[in-house]
Amino acid sequence: METQLIIGVMGGGSASTADIQAAYQLGALIAKQGWMLLNGGRNAGIMEASAKGARDHGGITVGILPDDTARRASRFIQIPILTGMGDARNYINVLTSHIVVACPGGAGTISEIALALKNNKQVILMNFDTGEIFDGYRTKGLLYAVNTPEEVIDTINSLIG
Amino acid sequence: METQLIIGVMGGGSASTADIQAAYQLGALIAKQGWMLLNGGRNAGIMEASAKGARDHGGITVGILPDDTARRASRFIQIPILTGMGDARNYINVLTSHIVVACPGGAGTISEIALALKNNKQVILMNFDTGEIFDGYRTKGLLYAVNTPEEVIDTINSLIG
Amino acid sequence: METQLIIGVMGGGSASTADIQAAYQLGALIAKQGWMLLNGGRNAGIMEASAKGARDHGGITVGILPDDTARRASRFIQIPILTGMGDARNYINVLTSHIVVACPGGAGTISEIALALKNNKQVILMNFDTGEIFDGYRTKGLLYAVNTPEEVIDTINSLIG
Amino acid sequence: METQLIIGVMGGGSASTADIQAAYQLGALIAKQGWMLLNGGRNAGIMEASAKGARDHGGITVGILPDDTARRASRFIQIPILTGMGDARNYINVLTSHIVVACPGGAGTISEIALALKNNKQVILMNFDTGEIFDGYRTKGLLYAVNTPEEVIDTINSLIG
Repeated sequence: METQLIIGVMGGGSASTADIQAAYQLGALIAKQGWMLLNGGRNAGIMEASAKGARDHGGITVGILPDDTARRASRFIQIPILTGMGDARNYINVLTSHIVVACPGGAGTISEIALALKNNKQVILMNFDTGEIFDGYRTKGLLYAVNTPEEVIDTINSLIG
Repeated sequence: METQLIIGVMGGGSASTADIQAAYQLGALIAKQGWMLLNGGRNAGIMEASAKGARDHGGITVGILPDDTARRASRFIQIPILTGMGDARNYINVLTSHIVVACPGGAGTISEIALALKNNKQVILMNFDTGEIFDGYRTKGLLYAVNTPEEVIDTINSLIG
Repeated sequence: METQLIIGVMGGGSASTADIQAAYQLGALIAKQGWMLLNGGRNAGIMEASAKGARDHGGITVGILPDDTARRASRFIQIPILTGMGDARNYINVLTSHIVVACPGGAGTISEIALALKNNKQVILMNFDTGEIFDGYRTKGLLYAVNTPEEVIDTINSLIG
Repeated sequence: METQLIIGVMGGGSASTADIQAAYQLGALIAKQGWMLLNGGRNAGIMEASAKGARDHGGITVGILPDDTARRASRFIQIPILTGMGDARNYINVLTSHIVVACPGGAGTISEIALALKNNKQVILMNFDTGEIFDGYRTKGLLYAVNTPEEVIDTINSLIG
């Protein structure tokens, strides 16, 4: 039995229309590859959009929620994990993902990028300019930056290839 | 879209042959009902057996692991959630489960029964005599005790019915 | 530099008058021994009483709170640790304590006894009858049962002696 | 009874000599102000140095450790909190601190800055250039940048004043 690849998709609870559309498309492509999608599980922003994209295309969606109830869970999350641990769940998000994709977001998303890199996870930034702060991790082969969902998929395929 | 029922199956990392067989059978019956199985995810005891039973019968299995790697994950766990949080993950086990089934186990399993009851989750003991310590929760309709996997399924069906 | 002994005092958020008085007295005796007192930090029941007892006698009090704010913290807690992790903080309570004392309580307290024993911590029950469920740990020298705060102190002194 | 101010000092487990000296000095000044110092608790880098500075000047030091034992705790940490939760403890670090100071560090420190800002904590960067990534939080009055331990103290005093 082989474990399916789990792709973590991080990003803001509020997001621009373009970012929402890209997140939906990313979720769709992840599902088409036969990979699982993991995110923060809430019914908002990048989380809702990426989960909907994956579910609309038959993918499995796992949401790691900060809450102790499912009230704020996206209905496109098939497997809602209730942590009751607030933002401490960000650590679980990155540990559980084989590869992390970061869409545009605020401090929460940046904390996930940082926790992922700290724990030697590969991170792909999609349309998200984090400046020079993580440059040391680019040279280590942990951090990648692309512009489109298609390029995310290509990068993942080259990383696991 | 409807969320699938998630049944948590707790129990020892080491267990008797009879308990292992009952856990396998319980996993099988949970899968046949179309429910998801959640457990502690490790490749040992009740965890391994219940996950194998569910997977052998087409069920979805979710494991909430204490570790920050998948090294000790059961290969019958389809979705390994890596918490890196040791026994603090027991809290996630019970929050995420709609109903908790406790097979025989030691202090870890007892902590899960206690955390579940504390958080108003219904708990079904299968062949596990916990004495009188949780008696107050029986009268509240939170704690049930049965002897066979079939009775567990009947109890769950009557609780959700 | 030597680390001070940290005694964890667990027990219910609601408690009888007699249990409240015993918890106060226990906190007082812990402080007089020069030990730190750790508990769940809230302004209720055994937590409030044991912290007040220790502070009234010059002790250091550490509270591991379930919340992400200090609103429900006891004012007798000198060092409020805000976990924002709900009952997952019970794991921190027992790991951080060198020895755990359990006063009467409900499922939360039982979860702490169980997590402590699972992690090889010595547990002293004070006036708390947990039945036979943890008997295996008595014979391992991990579980003790006494009736008074004075006996708790004697037991701790013999354990660390 | 009044709660003492808790100042969180974050920073790398390995650090330059200049940064180590500044962290020691910062710990010393925090203690002289009568504030508690909180950090990640390990016997390395900014953690060890800031704790030593505070203890050498009579301050209380609290360490929130990632481990389930005290083996890697700094001996200058008076109150070692064992979380057993790896980097999830970063969330506790920032919640528990009234104000967070970030000394130079890597991805772990950046995750703490991000988690602090996400949770509306004021953050003071000491000699740590994080680029433009957190600029939105400067304008909200949450993020400050200074060069010396003395300026950190001045900034804290103006924030609480």
